[in-house]
Amino acid sequence: MDKKAIGFLDSGVGGLTVVKQAMKQLPNESIYYIGDNARCPYGPRPAHEVIAFTWELTQFLLKKDIKLLVIACNTATAVALEEIRQRVDIPVIGVILPGSRAAIKNTDNGRIGVIGTEGTIKSGVYEQTLKAKDPTIQIASLSCPDFVPLVENNQINSSIAKKIVYETLQPMTKLNLDTLILGCTHYPILRHQIQNVMGEQVILIDSGAEAVSEVSTLLDYYEIAAHYSHRQSREYCFYTTGAKEPFFNIAKEWLEVNDLNVQEVRL
Amino acid sequence: MDKKAIGFLDSGVGGLTVVKQAMKQLPNESIYYIGDNARCPYGPRPAHEVIAFTWELTQFLLKKDIKLLVIACNTATAVALEEIRQRVDIPVIGVILPGSRAAIKNTDNGRIGVIGTEGTIKSGVYEQTLKAKDPTIQIASLSCPDFVPLVENNQINSSIAKKIVYETLQPMTKLNLDTLILGCTHYPILRHQIQNVMGEQVILIDSGAEAVSEVSTLLDYYEIAAHYSHRQSREYCFYTTGAKEPFFNIAKEWLEVNDLNVQEVRL
Repeated sequence: MDKKAIGFLDSGVGGLTVVKQAMKQLPNESIYYIGDNARCPYGPRPAHEVIAFTWELTQFLLKKDIKLLVIACNTATAVALEEIRQRVDIPVIGVILPGSRAAIKNTDNGRIGVIGTEGTIKSGVYEQTLKAKDPTIQIASLSCPDFVPLVENNQINSSIAKKIVYETLQPMTKLNLDTLILGCTHYPILRHQIQNVMGEQVILIDSGAEAVSEVSTLLDYYEIAAHYSHRQSREYCFYTTGAKEPFFNIAKEWLEVNDLNVQEVRL
Repeated sequence: MDKKAIGFLDSGVGGLTVVKQAMKQLPNESIYYIGDNARCPYGPRPAHEVIAFTWELTQFLLKKDIKLLVIACNTATAVALEEIRQRVDIPVIGVILPGSRAAIKNTDNGRIGVIGTEGTIKSGVYEQTLKAKDPTIQIASLSCPDFVPLVENNQINSSIAKKIVYETLQPMTKLNLDTLILGCTHYPILRHQIQNVMGEQVILIDSGAEAVSEVSTLLDYYEIAAHYSHRQSREYCFYTTGAKEPFFNIAKEWLEVNDLNVQEVRL
């Protein structure tokens, strides 16, 4: 039993989709979250930069004394997970393996789509992970560089969002996919629009939600889950490298909580 | 990537319910299984004896060079998991935490039943585990000492089995439970009879099946999952300390495989 917080990091607000699942599935746990909104999006950045930024966010959370770290960002998981794991001595969980596992479990026709940022798609990490488990799986990958800015600018329900999601995903609708991995933690915020374009027959895999099941397993495995008695004093703290106001507004709406503790930080 | 086998141990044939799930969920993996049929059941034995026997089975599997060990027996998990974990340097997974997690996730009315052997129920481990996560959960526990012999003697579909299951479970049917943990890996073999007595509204949690999801997570986390290319050469080997014939018959029927490699061993 360990009442220390779980740390979550992301390039911006996308990791809040993972936090929402964690608040639901792990109600005894404290959560510290940092979003690097000042430098978002990570998708188009070179790998060495994403690794450097991810390490800065990790160090910030380590100073807060966390017991487990979730890299709640697909781009950062794709390029930095291995390196961060080697550098720290707490368990570190990414979002790509859990999403891949869930997709393979779900597919009936063996045709899986992956959408993500340019960085994630270019890394080929979902293809490698899926193919290592089953090379007969057919995979279609598509980068959607306009989705993260839509979410970060809180334009989710705008007509421009509908148009962009529709036009971007058109090529994916003709491939007879039965499973689509939302390979970016920002995308569940656009879930409704994505499902509309893809059709109800396509199951959307939320890589972040799957990652939280993995967190739950590892907390038990390492015997570091918080006790029920810690629930009373659990803490939710949110930090952003950007401006407090827009982060607060998106977080409040997405997490459906009014009194959020959000602080601006300089790394 | 690691093509070494996963080891499973049980007091008898009960762990085959876990193996069946593993064969389905982890088709690239090799499996070594040992059932201590000669000394089954473990349920009524004192803790020190169960620990000693479990350690003997573990040593047998370690000599076969396994990469991960599943204690596919609730009684052995209840009393020996911690000690075995301390003695070996590969990941060791029990069946109690995964089952507890799944039960808490499933319950709506907070009323969970647990059935198991005398050893498991007497240890109070399910109560402790469930209460640590949520002390508001109401738990009813019942030991069912006659169930394991029914399964080991392959009397599953006999009228005596129906009668015993009916009479044993009567007290549990009046408690308004919405979730029942099958806290013994033998019990899924009696699933149909148990469901009939409890009613369709009660969800049965198969602790072994839940454990296999944990195995899958840890194989990925430790990067020791087998590659698809290993599927061709995967091995299923079954060992029993008892007689080959009855083990073979139960295993063939339960796993729905005709050509099983079963060997008698002396520990």
